[in-house]
Amino acid sequence: MIYLDNAATTKPNKGAFDRATAYVTEKFYNPSALYKEGFAMQGELKKARSVLLSRVADESAFELVFTSCGTESDNQAIFSFARRGNAVTTAGEHSAVSVAFHELKTRGIAEPRFAPLNKDGSVNVEKLLALVDEKTSFVSVMHVNNEIGAINDINKIAKLVKEKNPRVIFHSDGVQAYGKLPFKLAKEVDLYSISAHKIGGLKGVGALIKRKSLVLPAYLIGGGQESGRRSGTENTFGIMQFVYAAEEKFATIKEDYARLTDYRERLWELLDKEVYIRLSAENGTPYILSVSAQGLRGEILLHMADDKGLIVGTGSACSSNAKNRYSKVVLACGYDEKTADGVLRLSFSPETTEEDVERAARILNEIGLDLKKRMK
Amino acid sequence: MIYLDNAATTKPNKGAFDRATAYVTEKFYNPSALYKEGFAMQGELKKARSVLLSRVADESAFELVFTSCGTESDNQAIFSFARRGNAVTTAGEHSAVSVAFHELKTRGIAEPRFAPLNKDGSVNVEKLLALVDEKTSFVSVMHVNNEIGAINDINKIAKLVKEKNPRVIFHSDGVQAYGKLPFKLAKEVDLYSISAHKIGGLKGVGALIKRKSLVLPAYLIGGGQESGRRSGTENTFGIMQFVYAAEEKFATIKEDYARLTDYRERLWELLDKEVYIRLSAENGTPYILSVSAQGLRGEILLHMADDKGLIVGTGSACSSNAKNRYSKVVLACGYDEKTADGVLRLSFSPETTEEDVERAARILNEIGLDLKKRMK
Repeated sequence: MIYLDNAATTKPNKGAFDRATAYVTEKFYNPSALYKEGFAMQGELKKARSVLLSRVADESAFELVFTSCGTESDNQAIFSFARRGNAVTTAGEHSAVSVAFHELKTRGIAEPRFAPLNKDGSVNVEKLLALVDEKTSFVSVMHVNNEIGAINDINKIAKLVKEKNPRVIFHSDGVQAYGKLPFKLAKEVDLYSISAHKIGGLKGVGALIKRKSLVLPAYLIGGGQESGRRSGTENTFGIMQFVYAAEEKFATIKEDYARLTDYRERLWELLDKEVYIRLSAENGTPYILSVSAQGLRGEILLHMADDKGLIVGTGSACSSNAKNRYSKVVLACGYDEKTADGVLRLSFSPETTEEDVERAARILNEIGLDLKKRMK
Repeated sequence: MIYLDNAATTKPNKGAFDRATAYVTEKFYNPSALYKEGFAMQGELKKARSVLLSRVADESAFELVFTSCGTESDNQAIFSFARRGNAVTTAGEHSAVSVAFHELKTRGIAEPRFAPLNKDGSVNVEKLLALVDEKTSFVSVMHVNNEIGAINDINKIAKLVKEKNPRVIFHSDGVQAYGKLPFKLAKEVDLYSISAHKIGGLKGVGALIKRKSLVLPAYLIGGGQESGRRSGTENTFGIMQFVYAAEEKFATIKEDYARLTDYRERLWELLDKEVYIRLSAENGTPYILSVSAQGLRGEILLHMADDKGLIVGTGSACSSNAKNRYSKVVLACGYDEKTADGVLRLSFSPETTEEDVERAARILNEIGLDLKKRMK
């Protein structure tokens, strides 16, 4: 079985899982407990925060709050800081951001504004900036698009946004970037969402990185864990497995980036151009190659590939519940419905091998031609 | 090491953990994915929901939504249904409920009302009912008190509340009851919060049980997971470990209840009455024995016990962050500050042995007398 749906979720890092098992068998104590075994867990959580944070940010300027997932991080950021007036985001966001922005309108909190995308899936920065005015409280721009793989230069965008309105709180959904793209957060980025299960961690673990001087209201309230910013007993096992998985990812982040860039290009090179067109630009993340078999249905190809031992996506797994046939993001890139209907998202992990890529190309060509023939 | 702080968190069930590891090594797929491996996860989640729900409720009338913890379940229930007018709860609630009720006032949503407790820690039902009027939108009464162990007859209370105002939505925090008390939810209970890590599950997994006909708004929004009621990729591994742990607990729930009742009484019998008074009533949960070494500080005794290999609590672990010296709940039972200051919470699990209980009593008597002597 070849697994090329790593943007939906990755296979958890079993070595990290085994290492973290100590937090199940021995160090299972409640971190809020007063006895030394419980108190020691606070120390371990502090170290965990430092490991995860230091890889992408200056620890003197930023801190990290654990959450249960990327969605919770995004929701907490948006509902904490979007206020009277308007809030600006992009047409390319994951539903954890886009649905929350629509909700701002429903709840009468703020007017949501959506900046259009360029053909490559990145946000049109000029048009985004045109939406920011003196009544803008909050701006959210995803770091790496989860469907097309486009990279937004969030550090630069945050700086430009704040030049226009320094009171704006700037958030970025970094779920598809963290542990994959080598980068450091600029001081203009106030909030940054990350998720464990996209880089070999477990589902149910995420974090919200925040500028230290920013006061973050709690979204879950009660016992006052996470310095009052996120109540609920801390998921110590899941957090430590995330830490161990992340350490491995960051240790080889540049090599993986270079190798997967080669694999992505190799896969594209091998794909039959009579069947597939390419949506992902070369300057996008090497972890995602989005293509379209124009005139064919991506969902049918997905099932045909599955039967041959190749797992691929059609877009955001998280949008499948919405029963939307066409990806809004692909349409927002300017493609027509025929193109949107044929989208396959091929997403990699550092565990992906060159052989996987070559076998995947053979299967994709075979099923593409097969379905094309049957459609005639 | 004797662990008698099971009300704070339990040692995870390692057998259940090992069994659930299949969801890390093989069945790690995103349940929202369209291919058959992902879709199969939806089927497994459905079965998981059924196992956890059927043990405490009629599946034709109730359904279950997975969350990340008891706190999230409580918050979602409260902020979804407390509306204009007032909302009624008890003075004995866990901070996940009580802090959220205070927040209702801060946010101008509803007037929070707190019903007083009886000496045994249960809510004074008559006074609770007196607080319910035609402007009450929501009532929350915990099933088992987490500090004293008092049991509230929530089925009866829910019925009485609805006789007074049938439009009230009735919620109960069942975190300390689920998997411990044999019971079934009456149809008058609309919402019920449960948590995995109190019965051998992992931290980071909870659920909100709800009456089917009740429309539950999402608290985390985005991809529309959990039928739109809780977005975020489902924590399949944690959920399955919860299911396996719960199956074991429910298989012996009555025997464990009877045996721990004996152990609780045995422990009380062995404790030196010159040092300790008993707060927990005989009709409370057998899983908790709360005592007070009046005139001594519980926190000092906790550390002394810890040094001798006995782990106990002083009250709610989740309140330790609040830096409140005196437990509000113990004061609400009508005890004075001297009594509240000396509280030790001894909480059991089915893994607790008679030998644990006897050794714990020896240690508690020894340190109690020792500290008493030093205080003179």
